[in-house]
Amino acid sequence: MTVKEVSKILKIPVSSLHYYENEKLINPKRDKNNYRIFAKEDIMKIKCILILKSFNFSIAKIRELVTLYETCDSSSESRTLAGEMFEEQISELERKKEEYTNLINLFKLILLFEKPKDGEEKEADKLIEKIYNTYIKKEGE
Amino acid sequence: MTVKEVSKILKIPVSSLHYYENEKLINPKRDKNNYRIFAKEDIMKIKCILILKSFNFSIAKIRELVTLYETCDSSSESRTLAGEMFEEQISELERKKEEYTNLINLFKLILLFEKPKDGEEKEADKLIEKIYNTYIKKEGE
Repeated sequence: MTVKEVSKILKIPVSSLHYYENEKLINPKRDKNNYRIFAKEDIMKIKCILILKSFNFSIAKIRELVTLYETCDSSSESRTLAGEMFEEQISELERKKEEYTNLINLFKLILLFEKPKDGEEKEADKLIEKIYNTYIKKEGE
Repeated sequence: MTVKEVSKILKIPVSSLHYYENEKLINPKRDKNNYRIFAKEDIMKIKCILILKSFNFSIAKIRELVTLYETCDSSSESRTLAGEMFEEQISELERKKEEYTNLINLFKLILLFEKPKDGEEKEADKLIEKIYNTYIKKEGE
């Protein structure tokens, strides 16, 4: 596929494709006239880049992940290194996911309009405390 | 609790507390000297506001939810109205949560360094396609 075709299909400017190539995120082959030829794997990598960009990953982190995707290097050394590199990212994603789960539950509890029994704590209050303490509370100076 | 005490405990400026009051998100009582007195419910509401703010909810939406939290009005009319008001928010949160789940799975698949068998699609590719088609792909013009 030519750079124009890829640009059209993925609805991204040609300049973005050149940028990804300059940043060594993709490395399309060239034909005899030195025109870029994008293979299926290049398209996959670009889709992967677009996904990671939408999550605000840095170009450096995207490069690392795309390289792993490309090399499939399953030696235990690479595996350990990659595991360490992305442990933080995965924990952060798990944390965000948990945060959304908690907020969804809070909405549902508030929409129950539950009236607390005398002297008892509202269920919604317990969840507000939990979310506040986990995500919002600032560390003491 | 006084406005200064609340500001200290929640580590937010007094001006924020005044702003929330002006925006009718909270309505602390006054003592005989007209000083604001924050009850436990006010603190809960402020924590709830801080949580919703961290998710970039608009002041209008925060006001609606805090009012529901406050009134516990469980008449079927309010319940239906509130359900409709927040249906969209909850779906959006569910969508974001699903997005994080998919990205976590993608990371894990890429970190497996799986080599595809000849002629077979990589598992990671299937997931890239799915995430791309669901969240990134732009509508055709």
